[in-house]
Amino acid sequence: MRPSPDDPWLDGTVRFPVYYEDTDFSGFVYHANYLKYFERAREELVGLDYVRGLYLRGIHYVVARMELSFHAPAQHGDLIEVATRMRISASPIGLVEQTASKVARDAGKPAIKLVSTTIKLVAVDNAGEATRVPDDVLDHYRALATSRSRT
Amino acid sequence: MRPSPDDPWLDGTVRFPVYYEDTDFSGFVYHANYLKYFERAREELVGLDYVRGLYLRGIHYVVARMELSFHAPAQHGDLIEVATRMRISASPIGLVEQTASKVARDAGKPAIKLVSTTIKLVAVDNAGEATRVPDDVLDHYRALATSRSRT
Amino acid sequence: MRPSPDDPWLDGTVRFPVYYEDTDFSGFVYHANYLKYFERAREELVGLDYVRGLYLRGIHYVVARMELSFHAPAQHGDLIEVATRMRISASPIGLVEQTASKVARDAGKPAIKLVSTTIKLVAVDNAGEATRVPDDVLDHYRALATSRSRT
Amino acid sequence: MRPSPDDPWLDGTVRFPVYYEDTDFSGFVYHANYLKYFERAREELVGLDYVRGLYLRGIHYVVARMELSFHAPAQHGDLIEVATRMRISASPIGLVEQTASKVARDAGKPAIKLVSTTIKLVAVDNAGEATRVPDDVLDHYRALATSRSRT
Repeated sequence: MRPSPDDPWLDGTVRFPVYYEDTDFSGFVYHANYLKYFERAREELVGLDYVRGLYLRGIHYVVARMELSFHAPAQHGDLIEVATRMRISASPIGLVEQTASKVARDAGKPAIKLVSTTIKLVAVDNAGEATRVPDDVLDHYRALATSRSRT
Repeated sequence: MRPSPDDPWLDGTVRFPVYYEDTDFSGFVYHANYLKYFERAREELVGLDYVRGLYLRGIHYVVARMELSFHAPAQHGDLIEVATRMRISASPIGLVEQTASKVARDAGKPAIKLVSTTIKLVAVDNAGEATRVPDDVLDHYRALATSRSRT
Repeated sequence: MRPSPDDPWLDGTVRFPVYYEDTDFSGFVYHANYLKYFERAREELVGLDYVRGLYLRGIHYVVARMELSFHAPAQHGDLIEVATRMRISASPIGLVEQTASKVARDAGKPAIKLVSTTIKLVAVDNAGEATRVPDDVLDHYRALATSRSRT
Repeated sequence: MRPSPDDPWLDGTVRFPVYYEDTDFSGFVYHANYLKYFERAREELVGLDYVRGLYLRGIHYVVARMELSFHAPAQHGDLIEVATRMRISASPIGLVEQTASKVARDAGKPAIKLVSTTIKLVAVDNAGEATRVPDDVLDHYRALATSRSRT
């Protein structure tokens, strides 16, 4: 069973400042750290407590495929905004599109796109096998998607 | 020249959720990551832009000594609050006291102390030599300390 | 100018044990950490001192695109072997193919493929602009590729 | 029951190159990363498989206290050697002394001391409570200490 076009997209944004720890000696954010920003943003979208509850029930989304394009670098002190769109379905496969942008310091200026990614997630059980997503979980995502799209 | 008892203490708090990246296979936050929380909190207290500006002027605080006590562990999904007290003076030496606590999920419950630290910072120049802190920087810290204590 | 089929491929392998720091609370290696293993392996292939020397001359390879497939998870105590093939050319573009495998504990057993990636690197100058790779650097890579293929 | 002066000290050294990921925009190794080097070195001293086996038996050493002195910074491309002395006893408390030094590039030159630490470890059970170390574990450490001192 594949994701259906009827499955809702969840979307949201979250911001992370660039601290010392995020940079390397080139002066810019170390490339692997964008995967941390993206993962934090997915957790924030669904809710950390919900992610944890799912894990304790034996359901756990893992990254199966990831394509990344690096457009521009960020520096210490920059504010990174991650925009996330996620489509969860009854099938084990979840799709995610994410973009990390640098928030402009001048209000009138546009954000600068830093890194974009498309991700294929797979829901796995405790044994690491792909698993169908239970109805109540799907309902939760749908309710979340609906409430977000209203605001 | 040593820190003077007249030098003001800057204090503030900041919160960080515990993401996947912060934990290890024991199920708890990896011990070294508390140093990241503490460093982020120091940056937030002074302001990331100010930290960066100082760096570009050739002034840079580095950790010279650190004592850490680990009281209790934190897990994925916990919310960590770092309380910071920092005393900067004209001498190169800055003193910091920081505590990371787990914010209680029930409003009435107290926070749980996780890790506490005392830190000796040293202001260094581009060559890595200890350097006296310029008056305007000290004035900035004093103004910041005063405005914070008013709120 | 694009990479030419005549440009040599550099290849090599390097091994990293999985420490506490590499795992998350799911019990497995945190996905972003494979990018660290891959990057370490590229540095080891070229030589850390050569990478640093290039950087000081104002030449710096950055990741422009990356495709990742996650096949199986690794745990604390596993030994990860990264196999790297890299093709550098006079054009700014470098191509890399890397695979992280788990070394089998029993000598007779095959390694288990964990994560594979294809990467497009771009050589940039200090201003972050794509830059042609100087002849002596190319000669260095060619000599390295030749000496490796002999062993 | 406290550590006894008769308990053996285990010691050993291990080396880690400084990769991009270890540095920050100041050009030097990010201070928290020394805790990673120290922890890796403790794991290497005891053996990753033994650490994992202990964990699966429900015994797990955690850091209770740590004192750190930062003497000099390290850069990308440096080779860091961590020297570790560890004293494990039947009591839950383990003591560790560690020093990270920069290996000199010229054979005749001395290493440069970077960071030193003293650590108090506590053996805990699955519930996080301090636990006495079983005799067979202690025997393992003693055998390890003896075999190392012979080499």
